[in-house]
Amino acid sequence: MSQSTLSHSRPVVALLSDFGLADGYIGVMKGVIASITPEAQIIDITHDVAPQNVPSGAWILALAYRYFPTLQYTPLRSVGTVFVCVVDPGVGGSRGAIALHAGDWFFVGPDNGLFSYVLAEQTVYGAVTLSNTAYHLPQTSSTFHGRDIFAPVGAYLAGGVTLHELGTPIDPTVLQRIDVGHPVRQGAHIDAHIVHVDHFGNLITNIPLTMVPELFSSQQVRIVFTSNGAVVDQRRRFFADGPDNRQPLIYGDSSGYVGIAVRNGDAAKTLGVGYGAPITFTYSQGA
Amino acid sequence: MSQSTLSHSRPVVALLSDFGLADGYIGVMKGVIASITPEAQIIDITHDVAPQNVPSGAWILALAYRYFPTLQYTPLRSVGTVFVCVVDPGVGGSRGAIALHAGDWFFVGPDNGLFSYVLAEQTVYGAVTLSNTAYHLPQTSSTFHGRDIFAPVGAYLAGGVTLHELGTPIDPTVLQRIDVGHPVRQGAHIDAHIVHVDHFGNLITNIPLTMVPELFSSQQVRIVFTSNGAVVDQRRRFFADGPDNRQPLIYGDSSGYVGIAVRNGDAAKTLGVGYGAPITFTYSQGA
Amino acid sequence: MSQSTLSHSRPVVALLSDFGLADGYIGVMKGVIASITPEAQIIDITHDVAPQNVPSGAWILALAYRYFPTLQYTPLRSVGTVFVCVVDPGVGGSRGAIALHAGDWFFVGPDNGLFSYVLAEQTVYGAVTLSNTAYHLPQTSSTFHGRDIFAPVGAYLAGGVTLHELGTPIDPTVLQRIDVGHPVRQGAHIDAHIVHVDHFGNLITNIPLTMVPELFSSQQVRIVFTSNGAVVDQRRRFFADGPDNRQPLIYGDSSGYVGIAVRNGDAAKTLGVGYGAPITFTYSQGA
Repeated sequence: MSQSTLSHSRPVVALLSDFGLADGYIGVMKGVIASITPEAQIIDITHDVAPQNVPSGAWILALAYRYFPTLQYTPLRSVGTVFVCVVDPGVGGSRGAIALHAGDWFFVGPDNGLFSYVLAEQTVYGAVTLSNTAYHLPQTSSTFHGRDIFAPVGAYLAGGVTLHELGTPIDPTVLQRIDVGHPVRQGAHIDAHIVHVDHFGNLITNIPLTMVPELFSSQQVRIVFTSNGAVVDQRRRFFADGPDNRQPLIYGDSSGYVGIAVRNGDAAKTLGVGYGAPITFTYSQGA
Repeated sequence: MSQSTLSHSRPVVALLSDFGLADGYIGVMKGVIASITPEAQIIDITHDVAPQNVPSGAWILALAYRYFPTLQYTPLRSVGTVFVCVVDPGVGGSRGAIALHAGDWFFVGPDNGLFSYVLAEQTVYGAVTLSNTAYHLPQTSSTFHGRDIFAPVGAYLAGGVTLHELGTPIDPTVLQRIDVGHPVRQGAHIDAHIVHVDHFGNLITNIPLTMVPELFSSQQVRIVFTSNGAVVDQRRRFFADGPDNRQPLIYGDSSGYVGIAVRNGDAAKTLGVGYGAPITFTYSQGA
Repeated sequence: MSQSTLSHSRPVVALLSDFGLADGYIGVMKGVIASITPEAQIIDITHDVAPQNVPSGAWILALAYRYFPTLQYTPLRSVGTVFVCVVDPGVGGSRGAIALHAGDWFFVGPDNGLFSYVLAEQTVYGAVTLSNTAYHLPQTSSTFHGRDIFAPVGAYLAGGVTLHELGTPIDPTVLQRIDVGHPVRQGAHIDAHIVHVDHFGNLITNIPLTMVPELFSSQQVRIVFTSNGAVVDQRRRFFADGPDNRQPLIYGDSSGYVGIAVRNGDAAKTLGVGYGAPITFTYSQGA
């Protein structure tokens, strides 16, 4: 058996949460996964989603999932990536716990809107509520389903258990979706908002680059922040393009959305704005 | 050879430290481990133990270790989890360096009390001082035994070297233990303290849920913080149970201990208390 | 095939960046790597290099790389460690993108000086510009070459693609180098500076221990901070050596350089100095 043949059947469990890394919660979830499916490769997407911020977790997942290994059918079994996602303010209450096969990946987590983008973007081939407790830990707490339900279920999925063994099928159309706040074109301008502030202070809007094809060809573009009137009207194709004058600039972010940055600086601090800030985007054809 | 047969003999090296992740110290330890035992799966428990806080590191380890793969005897060799733990203010001095086989796991680190809970909870099948320098790096510094001694020893253990090859047997009863501050029942109340403040600001006490079986059935429970007189007397089975009124609430934490939380908030900030804060817990049967 | 034979041919991809862990950027890079070379073990060195601080990233890499698995030639292919390093303020602009075979390792990243220490310390067996887009992602952004170019190139290298398939050979002598600020001996003293402040507040100087062989045998040593006149003249072989009097002390850091620490404290805060601070080191033979 050649090495690469063996290797290509290695499943991935990708983790996303708001647990932080300080308490050992994520380490424990990985211990559970390694105990059930030792051959799985465990990859962290992030554990620094703002606490209980489901829309922010949904956004980060939406930008990441397509870059992970896709489902492949091998002689032994099907493998690919299982995303275990836990931003879960309703843990222990009445919210559902689900697993999905959507597009070329599997997703496990609470039914609270965390998979809204995935559901909107991918064909859902199957969805179940996690009612089969045989795939949970023997003892289940009311406050840490990441450890007790989602990690073991994700590990079993990665280890070859099929979706329908995990619980009761559920109609995907009834799954929770959050209003992800699509940008709205209003005549000459677009009303939108900031969906993410990254490590560098770059501000990512929810305006897809495909919605503004004239971003770099139009005579002028302008973003105004509703909250404080701050204006950005410089454009750059990349950060090092043009003088390092610390002025905020509009650019096409690698996420596929319009972004605002300060070269070698922090746009969020410079502009005094943050997550959720409403903006108005305007093309200007004239001077 | 089937995939799962191969996979189930994969050893785990789990890491816990106060090194943080910014300096590359943990990356270097992983490089050392991968150089010695490439087949080991390396899992981080946490590297954000408060600097030099041995009791806090001991606590996080205590809550985590049971969830990791247990020792299994395979035809080729024994595998399971080796915990490499480094909260080590005495590095380079006279404190001992040890490896333990306790319960179904191995533990490697300084002999300074970091393994106090493990020693109290598990049968110790063997303990050695790490006197065999053949299993250390060739050059050993006085300030980074995580890299020079503990990481390589943990990797060799994970790779099949036996405990007794690592050094001289030591009587487990002489190993250092810290006073972990057990709660004390004083008539109608329990004197205890906060042993951990987590990422969400949840306060974890050292009162095991098994010590307070009437937590949810008694007419009233009350926790008073000695330092500032703050009182918590609401109970919830999970965070989303009951109104989101931002009042602190007592709950049964997933760790198996009594906790205090604020739904969608930060109990430590709300109450103005932190790590180590003394508390008094009271059942009240009357009104 | 025995387990250890198989395992020892497992390649490592080690990651270093200034991306932080909060946004999912590193998770996405790992997803890309796992999609291309599932058998690779991915190890984080750090992702907390100060934003756009190329010299700091170069320093952390310099202290880490020697501890990672070295190149081995196996019957199937050569394996070892590929370092994918991204501190890249010039992304999208005219700076080059390179891969190196230096010493017993491979390095991939921007040609901006990040590999200055490696180039100074190791024999360079080959260097290429990453001109072969067949080994990049199909769509390449202008702001995230970590995901689109460096991660896939690193994964292909780890998977057996040879250096010269990745692009056009380049003369290593023309690669960018930063002035790493070697310490200068001026008669009785050495002019140097702080190159790193670690998680504990320890201050690491750029004075190699090999430059000051009398560090512990001379009658006295003294470090003066030019900026604020702070003086350190205590020496310790390790942190726990001597009284815990919270006085800053000079020690031989595990990096192989002179360091300054406060036992169970934070030297940077105590002394009021930080990254880049100039110092003067003096031996004093007399009283």
